[in-house]
Amino acid sequence: MESLFEKKLKSEIIFQGELIDLRRDEVLLPDGNIGLREYINHPGAVCCVPLLPDGRVLFIKQYRYAINSEIIELPAGKIDKNESPECAARREIEEEIGYKTKELTLLTKIYPAVGFANEIMWIYLSQSLEKSIPRTDEDEFIIVLPLNFEKAMSMIWNGQIRDAKSIIALQWANRFLKK
Amino acid sequence: MESLFEKKLKSEIIFQGELIDLRRDEVLLPDGNIGLREYINHPGAVCCVPLLPDGRVLFIKQYRYAINSEIIELPAGKIDKNESPECAARREIEEEIGYKTKELTLLTKIYPAVGFANEIMWIYLSQSLEKSIPRTDEDEFIIVLPLNFEKAMSMIWNGQIRDAKSIIALQWANRFLKK
Repeated sequence: MESLFEKKLKSEIIFQGELIDLRRDEVLLPDGNIGLREYINHPGAVCCVPLLPDGRVLFIKQYRYAINSEIIELPAGKIDKNESPECAARREIEEEIGYKTKELTLLTKIYPAVGFANEIMWIYLSQSLEKSIPRTDEDEFIIVLPLNFEKAMSMIWNGQIRDAKSIIALQWANRFLKK
Repeated sequence: MESLFEKKLKSEIIFQGELIDLRRDEVLLPDGNIGLREYINHPGAVCCVPLLPDGRVLFIKQYRYAINSEIIELPAGKIDKNESPECAARREIEEEIGYKTKELTLLTKIYPAVGFANEIMWIYLSQSLEKSIPRTDEDEFIIVLPLNFEKAMSMIWNGQIRDAKSIIALQWANRFLKK
């Protein structure tokens, strides 16, 4: 097997929802057989670590319907059409927690769910924050939760923070700030 | 706003594929309005860090159609119906890389994509491996990639490994082994 590449033969939009765009493609497998691949066509997303001068990170508490519970996360969201990841990061920070960001640093980008989504997530450190007004989406209910950086790190290790993007984002911020 | 809870009013299966089960639910929002929630109903998954006695971790290289590229990951997979996470972990290690696991340690569990999926992922350290025969699914093409532990950690930090579950799993294994 020289290459693991799978060639697209046919692509079909299975479902186009408000949030989810689901595709089913027919592909040529490396062994010459035909396979089916179902995946969510995702516009990409951003996740931010908003850091206050006093060392606290602004997390959010949000009810996530999919997992039927409240969960502690970092501000994050999908990239809008024709929007850059950097603009999306600034927008999400302002919308979700009500701060303008003067200093934005790209920390890394990750694939959150390669098994069933083509989502790429850009992760930013957001500093020099300036108070603004939150403007959440009309169906979005968020409580801002400022957490001391070290406390948040310990909440990652003891399982109080279990959201994958937030775990990775805080660890990258930690490494970046200690350099 | 006393609670962020969203009450399910109606649930609809939008699409039932081979891999993906997509739901759309009508919910009562905290402000009394009605909202729509679309999400992937996921059976849960496991991700494993298979560690050889010589300190190498058995990663896999796999073409992921959703992101149109080869990617380095740890062995992982969905939990079958009526299967425990631990059984799924043992099965995936045997199927994907061809080893039986004598020693399995639960490291943590995470939510990989709370925005659009109810997936919970159990992460295991797998030790005392015994050579067996790989039995990948017929549409699954995998190259086993043994990596020195420290080398793999550096590949996480320099962006050669970008798969969220693998990043978190290796970091948890690192912390567990150094305790």
